Amino acid sequence: MSIFSFALTPRISETDLVGHVNNVSIAAWFEDLRVRYMASLEATDAQGGMVHFTLASLQIDFIGETHYGSDVTMSMESVAVGNSSITLEGVMHQNDKLAARGTAVMVHWHPESHRPQRIPDFYREKVGH
Amino acid sequence: MSIFSFALTPRISETDLVGHVNNVSIAAWFEDLRVRYMASLEATDAQGGMVHFTLASLQIDFIGETHYGSDVTMSMESVAVGNSSITLEGVMHQNDKLAARGTAVMVHWHPESHRPQRIPDFYREKVGH
Amino acid sequence: MSIFSFALTPRISETDLVGHVNNVSIAAWFEDLRVRYMASLEATDAQGGMVHFTLASLQIDFIGETHYGSDVTMSMESVAVGNSSITLEGVMHQNDKLAARGTAVMVHWHPESHRPQRIPDFYREKVGH
Amino acid sequence: MSIFSFALTPRISETDLVGHVNNVSIAAWFEDLRVRYMASLEATDAQGGMVHFTLASLQIDFIGETHYGSDVTMSMESVAVGNSSITLEGVMHQNDKLAARGTAVMVHWHPESHRPQRIPDFYREKVGH
Repeated sequence: MSIFSFALTPRISETDLVGHVNNVSIAAWFEDLRVRYMASLEATDAQGGMVHFTLASLQIDFIGETHYGSDVTMSMESVAVGNSSITLEGVMHQNDKLAARGTAVMVHWHPESHRPQRIPDFYREKVGH
Repeated sequence: MSIFSFALTPRISETDLVGHVNNVSIAAWFEDLRVRYMASLEATDAQGGMVHFTLASLQIDFIGETHYGSDVTMSMESVAVGNSSITLEGVMHQNDKLAARGTAVMVHWHPESHRPQRIPDFYREKVGH
Repeated sequence: MSIFSFALTPRISETDLVGHVNNVSIAAWFEDLRVRYMASLEATDAQGGMVHFTLASLQIDFIGETHYGSDVTMSMESVAVGNSSITLEGVMHQNDKLAARGTAVMVHWHPESHRPQRIPDFYREKVGH
Repeated sequence: MSIFSFALTPRISETDLVGHVNNVSIAAWFEDLRVRYMASLEATDAQGGMVHFTLASLQIDFIGETHYGSDVTMSMESVAVGNSSITLEGVMHQNDKLAARGTAVMVHWHPESHRPQRIPDFYREKVGH
């Protein structure tokens, strides 16, 4: 079940000489999904930076080839809020077929100590945890 | 007057440390405009490569800063078909303000001789020249 | 211990509005490490495509911020050859500090059946397994 | 005659499905040339942003195809300092053949009024004008 999604159109500059969309472009799309979702939680500042959240790790599983010429759908499937980290799981479909799955862990930092700190209830309520 | 247009959402990965959208990202958007417009003329092959057309030159004038956080509109404003080249002029707006203007010259090549050759009437009719 | 490494200079277009190098750029650098390493094994065809290898998954752990203004070093640390897959572990350092760790799993496919197949001894000998 | 140059290695992620290096990647390389050259003049601040200079226009002429698999050389050929603008002309070679020519105009702004202002003698002396 998708809790947030949007479509995007692959660009020629996002393909590579193998003839498919390059994996780096797919990493950019998953960041776009992550950032737009976080923005929908009002977890970003005015400039778009994620307030006190930093990307700690990123995993992408490439399930099928992604092609130029058809739109893709980026969907956030699940969000898990831990003590000081949040885990976001998204998927990318093209022509109704699952093409990639991306999981990101973001850590919440104290703005002065720069150490991990508990994620505020504000986000927990938004996410429904 | 726009003859072809679409909107897109700037991504964090398209900004740079100056705080705006990086000029290279804008070059990618103008390519997207150019390729989608050419595709609308059915001037591209199945994989999206432009059949017998090659980018000869690209000019972008940066008129205003482009920011993360608001969609932009890419619009093709004029298309001029010469003997063996086609000149495409597009504009990019953000928040109803002109932010950049891009002009591209594409050359039509003979697939065997690799020399410039007259653009077929097929394209002239499509473009209305 | 590094088995393959090179330096690169971060570009302005690889940073984002947060002020650091964007994580998508780091994904591009790890691909560059992976592809150059595989090329050093003569595992790529003339055009640079990896012969019969496809990226199955990618994990990047971001350990420290990466900044514009200092070169980074990309190093391949370990390579593990399984039956039909190869796991590549690389690291990225900036100013002698570990900044990111990237792990990629590539699968070897049969060119006709498109099913995973045993990695040839050719690669096993090259890698030292 | 080159007044500043460096080599770089094209990446798979910088190619596109046509099989060559994508023009957007070449725009990134010319920005890299421009920024590194300006940095060599000590015209950049600590973070790498160009102090009071903004890119006004960019022109790239694509003279030959650029391929994955061979290093390219980016060279600054000429720099012309006007009253409030500076024009930078660079070239890109691959395998000793001229592949692209890039011209950029940067405008010097007053940090408070945000209006164009005369380029300081500091830069004129550096550039040799």
